[in-house]
Amino acid sequence: MSEATQTATAWLARIHVTLKAAVVDPQGDTILSALHQLHFAEVQGVRMGKYLEVTLDAADEATARDRVDAMCRTLLANPVIERYSFAVEPAPGT
Amino acid sequence: MSEATQTATAWLARIHVTLKAAVVDPQGDTILSALHQLHFAEVQGVRMGKYLEVTLDAADEATARDRVDAMCRTLLANPVIERYSFAVEPAPGT
Repeated sequence: MSEATQTATAWLARIHVTLKAAVVDPQGDTILSALHQLHFAEVQGVRMGKYLEVTLDAADEATARDRVDAMCRTLLANPVIERYSFAVEPAPGT
Repeated sequence: MSEATQTATAWLARIHVTLKAAVVDPQGDTILSALHQLHFAEVQGVRMGKYLEVTLDAADEATARDRVDAMCRTLLANPVIERYSFAVEPAPGT
């Protein structure tokens, strides 16, 4: 382990929160109707989700991943109807 | 070009719509405050965006990309304050 990984550095987490497949998505259905009205007749389905970019300080990538996972479970996703996934990378410019 | 690419097949577009960097993001700021209150003090910033999965029929990937780009410009993104990006892949199960 290099010394650099032991200093708190900034990480960028790209988080996707999507509705589980069985959950009705009225927002997606509304967009689907609007696309059809705009003559995008070839569209078969739309699912709407959330995308968050979270910048955080952590000693290393594993810690950053643990903390982001805790954020998703605690606040960012509703585990009853949503699933989440994320990727962590060093924040740009750090 | 193989014959398969000339038949209309289903494509899945994964679309990200994010606020331009200079645009204030009250929703992201609210989530940042909530994370701090939940003792995620290491979080430096949150930006909120949209993530859409659009399934559409198209003869080939280039056509699918053109149509998705038109959808983003016409309906899905507000070009004044947002930018969008997307990736197109064959829809699962096709």
